[in-house]
Amino acid sequence: MSISDWVRPGIRAMAGYQPGEQPAPGQRVIKLNTNENPYPAPAVVLDALREAAAGEALRRYPVPDARPVREAAARAYGLDPDQVVVGNGSDDLLTMLLRTFVGPGENVVAPAPTYSLYETLTNIQGGAYREVPWGVGGSLLVRAIADADPALVFITRPNAPFGFACGLEQVAALCRAVDAPVVLDEAYADFASDNGLALLAEHPNLIVTRSFSKGFSLAGLRLGLGFAHPEVAAELHKVRDSYNVDALAQAGAAAALDNLDAYRPNLDAVVAERARMTQALRERGFRVAESQANFLFARVPHGDARPWYEALKERGILIRYFPDEELADGLRISIGTPEENEALLGVLDGISGG
Amino acid sequence: MSISDWVRPGIRAMAGYQPGEQPAPGQRVIKLNTNENPYPAPAVVLDALREAAAGEALRRYPVPDARPVREAAARAYGLDPDQVVVGNGSDDLLTMLLRTFVGPGENVVAPAPTYSLYETLTNIQGGAYREVPWGVGGSLLVRAIADADPALVFITRPNAPFGFACGLEQVAALCRAVDAPVVLDEAYADFASDNGLALLAEHPNLIVTRSFSKGFSLAGLRLGLGFAHPEVAAELHKVRDSYNVDALAQAGAAAALDNLDAYRPNLDAVVAERARMTQALRERGFRVAESQANFLFARVPHGDARPWYEALKERGILIRYFPDEELADGLRISIGTPEENEALLGVLDGISGG
Repeated sequence: MSISDWVRPGIRAMAGYQPGEQPAPGQRVIKLNTNENPYPAPAVVLDALREAAAGEALRRYPVPDARPVREAAARAYGLDPDQVVVGNGSDDLLTMLLRTFVGPGENVVAPAPTYSLYETLTNIQGGAYREVPWGVGGSLLVRAIADADPALVFITRPNAPFGFACGLEQVAALCRAVDAPVVLDEAYADFASDNGLALLAEHPNLIVTRSFSKGFSLAGLRLGLGFAHPEVAAELHKVRDSYNVDALAQAGAAAALDNLDAYRPNLDAVVAERARMTQALRERGFRVAESQANFLFARVPHGDARPWYEALKERGILIRYFPDEELADGLRISIGTPEENEALLGVLDGISGG
Repeated sequence: MSISDWVRPGIRAMAGYQPGEQPAPGQRVIKLNTNENPYPAPAVVLDALREAAAGEALRRYPVPDARPVREAAARAYGLDPDQVVVGNGSDDLLTMLLRTFVGPGENVVAPAPTYSLYETLTNIQGGAYREVPWGVGGSLLVRAIADADPALVFITRPNAPFGFACGLEQVAALCRAVDAPVVLDEAYADFASDNGLALLAEHPNLIVTRSFSKGFSLAGLRLGLGFAHPEVAAELHKVRDSYNVDALAQAGAAAALDNLDAYRPNLDAVVAERARMTQALRERGFRVAESQANFLFARVPHGDARPWYEALKERGILIRYFPDEELADGLRISIGTPEENEALLGVLDGISGG
């Protein structure tokens, strides 16, 4: 008997996904490393949560298919509840998508660099992960993805870690070019000037995913939404854990979706700070691409970005550094409150002046 | 393009798990169909939840590996935190186990009848589900399971839907007889007179799972625990969603595990009512096996149990009926409060007298 003999070879060989560092509760840091919203959720949402936590509701199982949340999402976004699947975070939806569509050895294709969890989830599922560089661009990118014979495609818009949003016409072309589901990961869409929901009506192979962890200030609750053709949604529901979204998360999600306007000031403040920080970092010699998300990818004036990352961490500011060759000269910086952003700039000035 | 062509054949062919009926929030029924605890969680747990919902915590991601919950569980049960994995419900742990240990076409074996989700999860994973009848019994049961060449074994103790607890020496013999992980599903162990945790020290292939939905009155929160050899736990963590347990559930779980004594009156009341109801149902001509869980499987005096299920439902009492041949003469009845149980008996008397 040997423990490692029992484990599937693909799992044994893999390292597991490494999430961004989460400081212990109570630890005082300026946390600009995992793209949370710097402002708390509106009072109407937190009130709904506390009310749900007070009642008898927790003794009983939650609504298995989160129907009230699906109805609230349908109202909020002009869709039908049968087009909506709710996840325990959008990561849960990504897992459902892999399990529904990707058999052993089948290809999962994504423009890269992108969210590294796609590769981890593909490895867990026993599929083959293939990347096509974003740099290929335009119709050649669409062609390259189609030629890779995908069972599933992931395209992130706005993209991570750069923050740009590819053209919606490119997403539509991709849906037409591949005979497979195309997942448009819109985790950051609440900060962008447009989104792909309108494409759902024309493309039965399009699936749009959303997260409550960024725009909605509810990363701690684990909530995501998937929007798809009703037949696709029905298949996802089969592989969904029967009670995947707890009663408190359902209460919070419904309150958030019924009160989108209450989020407007937070989102507007982040977008305004994003513009200010892009400018401020450029003035300091960083190369910063335009971002449609709530983070910036800032390439340092020269050399590797790791010393910057470490110096910031030493001074109590967490940002994200990726050692991959193509990314190692950059810092991915979440947009914080004006005070947090000023603190970051102050430390950067200290580092470059020192 | 056809949607069904994109879906993995095994998923397309399956129906999806059917959870027990969950009435809409606010609907007034006596709910004895999915084995929730009839009493709410202790105040100390609900207070911890409300406190967590009030703070800034929800804006940020939860602790990815639920370390504080694992430490609380280790303290409560005399284990090491490295032996503990936390799930979004114990169903989430069952999914992790399938994904870690079961490759395409490999066998998952369980004594039956049992929790029907095992078969659903095996189908989703592309494994082959095999059942061995409980009736085989004793060492022959162990032999039959070993001979089925399992990649993973599920054994439920106390069993569902009958409620009996097989001998712990049978569990130990099973662990010795198979060269594969053995999952001891202890969802109902809080109501039983003993449990299998002590077997963990001797059997590196044993994995014990627990639920917060039954004994802990927190079905609405979605929480489960897995206890295993540290090397096994490390593999499960790789396939675990990085943020699978939300911040509120983590706060509730830690409070519950730190206050096990606060649950004692609830659990004792359920066990006392279980004895009373076993007797009361037998006096009415039902055949009721001794149960170590918080439900009874009561075979009706004659014929099929469906008319009883329907008559109860008509009168606002939900219990569980399974149409499978071996179970169709029985009602699975969760133990409720004394008032709920009396209401059930009153309706049964009305049915049999009518």
